[in-house]
Amino acid sequence: MSRQEYSLIELAEIIAADIQGDANYRVSSIGTLQSASSEQLTFIANPKYQKYLPTTQAGAVILSEQDLSYFSGNALITANPYLAYARLSQLFARDVLLSAGISPSAEVHPSAQISGSATVAAGVIISEDVRIADNVVVGPNTVIGAGCIVGENSLLQANVTLYPDVHIGKECLVHSGAVLGADGFGFANESGKWVKIAQLGGVRIGDNVEIGACTTIDRGALDNTEIGNGVILDNQIQIAHNVQIGEHSAIAGCTAVAGSTKIGANCTIAGACGITGHLEIAAGTHITAMSLVTKSIKEPGAYSSGTGMLPTKEWKKSVVRFRQLDDLSRRLKSLEEKVLKSKGS
Amino acid sequence: MSRQEYSLIELAEIIAADIQGDANYRVSSIGTLQSASSEQLTFIANPKYQKYLPTTQAGAVILSEQDLSYFSGNALITANPYLAYARLSQLFARDVLLSAGISPSAEVHPSAQISGSATVAAGVIISEDVRIADNVVVGPNTVIGAGCIVGENSLLQANVTLYPDVHIGKECLVHSGAVLGADGFGFANESGKWVKIAQLGGVRIGDNVEIGACTTIDRGALDNTEIGNGVILDNQIQIAHNVQIGEHSAIAGCTAVAGSTKIGANCTIAGACGITGHLEIAAGTHITAMSLVTKSIKEPGAYSSGTGMLPTKEWKKSVVRFRQLDDLSRRLKSLEEKVLKSKGS
Amino acid sequence: MSRQEYSLIELAEIIAADIQGDANYRVSSIGTLQSASSEQLTFIANPKYQKYLPTTQAGAVILSEQDLSYFSGNALITANPYLAYARLSQLFARDVLLSAGISPSAEVHPSAQISGSATVAAGVIISEDVRIADNVVVGPNTVIGAGCIVGENSLLQANVTLYPDVHIGKECLVHSGAVLGADGFGFANESGKWVKIAQLGGVRIGDNVEIGACTTIDRGALDNTEIGNGVILDNQIQIAHNVQIGEHSAIAGCTAVAGSTKIGANCTIAGACGITGHLEIAAGTHITAMSLVTKSIKEPGAYSSGTGMLPTKEWKKSVVRFRQLDDLSRRLKSLEEKVLKSKGS
Repeated sequence: MSRQEYSLIELAEIIAADIQGDANYRVSSIGTLQSASSEQLTFIANPKYQKYLPTTQAGAVILSEQDLSYFSGNALITANPYLAYARLSQLFARDVLLSAGISPSAEVHPSAQISGSATVAAGVIISEDVRIADNVVVGPNTVIGAGCIVGENSLLQANVTLYPDVHIGKECLVHSGAVLGADGFGFANESGKWVKIAQLGGVRIGDNVEIGACTTIDRGALDNTEIGNGVILDNQIQIAHNVQIGEHSAIAGCTAVAGSTKIGANCTIAGACGITGHLEIAAGTHITAMSLVTKSIKEPGAYSSGTGMLPTKEWKKSVVRFRQLDDLSRRLKSLEEKVLKSKGS
Repeated sequence: MSRQEYSLIELAEIIAADIQGDANYRVSSIGTLQSASSEQLTFIANPKYQKYLPTTQAGAVILSEQDLSYFSGNALITANPYLAYARLSQLFARDVLLSAGISPSAEVHPSAQISGSATVAAGVIISEDVRIADNVVVGPNTVIGAGCIVGENSLLQANVTLYPDVHIGKECLVHSGAVLGADGFGFANESGKWVKIAQLGGVRIGDNVEIGACTTIDRGALDNTEIGNGVILDNQIQIAHNVQIGEHSAIAGCTAVAGSTKIGANCTIAGACGITGHLEIAAGTHITAMSLVTKSIKEPGAYSSGTGMLPTKEWKKSVVRFRQLDDLSRRLKSLEEKVLKSKGS
Repeated sequence: MSRQEYSLIELAEIIAADIQGDANYRVSSIGTLQSASSEQLTFIANPKYQKYLPTTQAGAVILSEQDLSYFSGNALITANPYLAYARLSQLFARDVLLSAGISPSAEVHPSAQISGSATVAAGVIISEDVRIADNVVVGPNTVIGAGCIVGENSLLQANVTLYPDVHIGKECLVHSGAVLGADGFGFANESGKWVKIAQLGGVRIGDNVEIGACTTIDRGALDNTEIGNGVILDNQIQIAHNVQIGEHSAIAGCTAVAGSTKIGANCTIAGACGITGHLEIAAGTHITAMSLVTKSIKEPGAYSSGTGMLPTKEWKKSVVRFRQLDDLSRRLKSLEEKVLKSKGS
C-alpha cells in the first residue's frame, strides 16, 4: 500500500467536497465502514449502511448531505460519495516499484521502438516493429507480437499475450492471462472437414480501456475487431472476430460475444451472458446476468432470459411442463372455445 | 500482411475457378465487399450482399454463377465462394519471420529431441524426453512438460502450457493461454473433506486440430483425454478429464464439457453450452448456443435449451409463471374434466 | 509414471483393507476395470460395473464386501473403494524430477525469502518481499508479485500469475494459467464514463486448496477475497472481488461468482453456474449445472434453473409459449371463474 498520508483538506480539494470536523486530520488508507480504523478514510454510498455510521471507528467518512444527521465525526460531504471514493481510492493504490527501462532478461527486437520512459519487465518478449509509448509498463513474461502499438501510460500486466497487429490506446490496463489478437474462429466446411480461413484483420483498442484477466479478444477475419474508448471488460470474457463495442460500455465476467456483433455505446452487460453473432445491440442497452441474446436489440432497455432458480425438486416439475407448454396452450384455447360456445348456446 | 501479389489466373488454378475479365489482374490482399480497394480480392457468399456488388471497388470478386448477372468486373467463378475464400485467405496470411532454430534464451532439457527444422522461440521451457517434429514452431514463453510430443508442422503460439504426457498430432495450431494436461477435477469425499485423485492419464490430440486461446483440456484420470483429427475448438472451452471428441467436430467459445463425455464425429456445438459428464452425443448432432445438455443424445439433430430473451419486465412475469407451471397444468386438466362432465351432463 | 511397485500387503496397510488372494502380488500402476493389465491395480466403486469384474485382466481390484461374490481374484476389500482408489492413486503419480533450488534463469528479487528446500523453475519472476516456504515448487515462467506468501508444500504450476499481496496456504496446488489477485471489476460512473476504483485488498487462500487452470480470483476492493481451507476449484472459474468461499466447498468448471457473495462451507456447485453479487449461500447447498442464482439461499438443499434440453423444433414452440405464460395463466384463471360461475348458476 501507499505510505503517503493525506489531510482532509487535501482530499476535499480533489473531490470538491465540504468538510465537517478537523480539516487537518490525516488518513493513510481506506477501509470499509465496519472495519476502518482511525487512520483510515471510509465512505457510505448506500443508505442501508447508515446504521453503521454511529459506531464506525474510521478517521473520516465520505458521505452525502442526507447522511450528515447520522454522523458528527470528521466527514467529506459530496453529492456522490461512491464517485468520490473511486477518485480517492487511486491515491492509496500500491506504489509500483518499477523503474523505467528495459530489463536485461527482456528480449526486444532491434526494430522495436521503446520510449525511454517505458518499463519493460523481466522475461518480456517484444517482436519486430512494435511501438511502446511514454510511461507504458509491460509486466513480466508478457509477449508482444510484431507490429503492435501500445499507447501512452498504458499498463500490460504479467503474462499478457498480444498477437501481431494489435493496437492499444492510451491509459489502458490489460490484466494477466489476457490474449488479444488470436485467430477468430473462422472455417469453411468442405465435405465434412474444416478449412481454416486465415484471420487477416487486427485488433484496435481505444483509450482508457480495461481488459480483465484471461479475457480473449480475437483478431478480425478481414477488417479489425474494435473496442471503443472507455470500455471496461471484466475477466474471462470472449470477444470474437470483428465484434465492435461502443464507447463506455461495460461487460461483466465470463460473457461471450460471437462474431461480427456490434454492441452500442454505454451498454451494461452482466456476467455469463451469451450474445450470438451478427447482431446489433442498441446503445444504452442493459442485459441481466446469464441471458442468451439471439436477436438484435433495437430499443435500449433491460433484457433478460432464463427461468429463475428453484429448489431442484420443484424445478424438475416445471421443466416437464415447459416441454408441454405448446400442448398446454392449445388445450387452453380449445377449452376457451368450448366454454364460450356452451355459454353462447 | 504478405507482400506477395497473385494474378487471377494463379488464384483460379488453386481453387479451380473460371475467370471473368482480366486474367492477368493482380491482387495483394483480401477485403470485404464494402471496403475492398482495387488491389484487393473479395468474395460474396451470401445473396443478401448482392446489393453491394455493383458498387464494390474490389479488384476482383470470388462469386458463384448466380451472382454473375449482378457483376461485370473481374471475377473468379466457383460453386462455393466461401470455401474458395478460405483457401485463398491462407495465401495472404502474415509472413512468419521466425527462422528455424532454438533461441538462446529458451531452455531445452538435454534429453529432448528437437528437429533441426523446428523453431523454438525466446523464453520457451522444454522438459525431459520431449519430442518436437519437423517444422514445428513453439512460440515465446511457452512451457512444454516432460514426455510431450508435438507432430510435424504444428504451431504452438506464445504462452501455451503443456503438462507432461500431452501428445499433439501433425498440422495442429494451439493458441496462447491454452493449457493442455492440467489435472482433471477428481476428488473423493471423506467425511466432508476432499481427497485428491491423482490424474494419471494423458492427453492425445489428433492431426489438424485447432485449439483456441485460454482453452483448457484436462488430462485423464486413468485413461487419456482424446481429441480426434480435424476437431476445431474455439477460445475458453473447458474439456474435462477423459472426454472424447470425435473427428471434425467443432465447438464454439466458452462451452464446457464435463468428465468422460463422448462427443461423436462431425458435431457442431455452439458457444457457452454446458454438457454434463458421462454422456454420449451422437455423431452429427448440432447444439444451439448456451444450451444445457444433461442427457445423452442418441439421435443426431438440433437441440436447444433456455427461454429466449425478453424485456426484463415481461420476463419477470414469465419467470413467476414458470414456477407455477405444474400447478397451472393441473388446474387446466381439472377444468377440462369439469367442462367435459358438464357437457356430458 | 512412477517406476515403483507396491505389494498388495503394502497397499492394504495404507487404506486399512482386507486382502483376498496373494498378499505379495505386486502392481506398478492403476488402470480401469476394462483396460487394466496384470501389472495394474483397479477399483470398482459403482455397482453397474460389476459385469466387468469376471473378465477384468487387472492384477488386483479394490472393492467392497458386496462385490466379492463377483470376483475371486486378488482384491483389496474396503468399505469405500473410491476413497481407497483416491488415496492409492497418489502413490502412482508421475515423479516430479525437479530438484530443490533456484534456476539460473529465474529472477528473484533480493528481498524475497526462498526456503532452501523450495524449487524455483526456469523463467520464474519473483518480486520484492515474497516469502516462499519449505518444499514449495514454483513452475516455469510463473510470475509472483510483491509481498506474496506461498505456504509449505504448495505447488504453483507453469505460467501462473500472482499479483501483489496474494497469500497462499500450505499444501495448495495452483494450475497453469490461473491468475490470482487481478483487480476486481469496480468502477463508479460519472456522466457516462467509468472511473476506476483502485482495488486495495488482497487475496487469502487457505490450506489444501486446489485452483484449476485459467481460474481467476480477483483481489478485494478494500478487504480481502477469501478462499477457505480445503476448497477445490476447477478450471476457468471466475471469483470476483471480496467473495468468500467456506471450507471444503467444491466448484466445477466455468462457474462465475460475482462480487462480495459469501458461499458457505461444504457447498457443491456444478459447472457453468452464474452466481450474482452480494448473496449468501448457506453451507451445504448444492447447485446443479448451469444454474443462475440471483437470490441468497438460506436453506441448504439442491437448487436448479433452466429449461432442460429439447429438440430445437419443439423447443422453439415452448419458447414462444414461455413469453405468453402470464397471459396463459390469466386466461386460465378467467376460464376457471367462468366455469365455476356457470356451474353455480
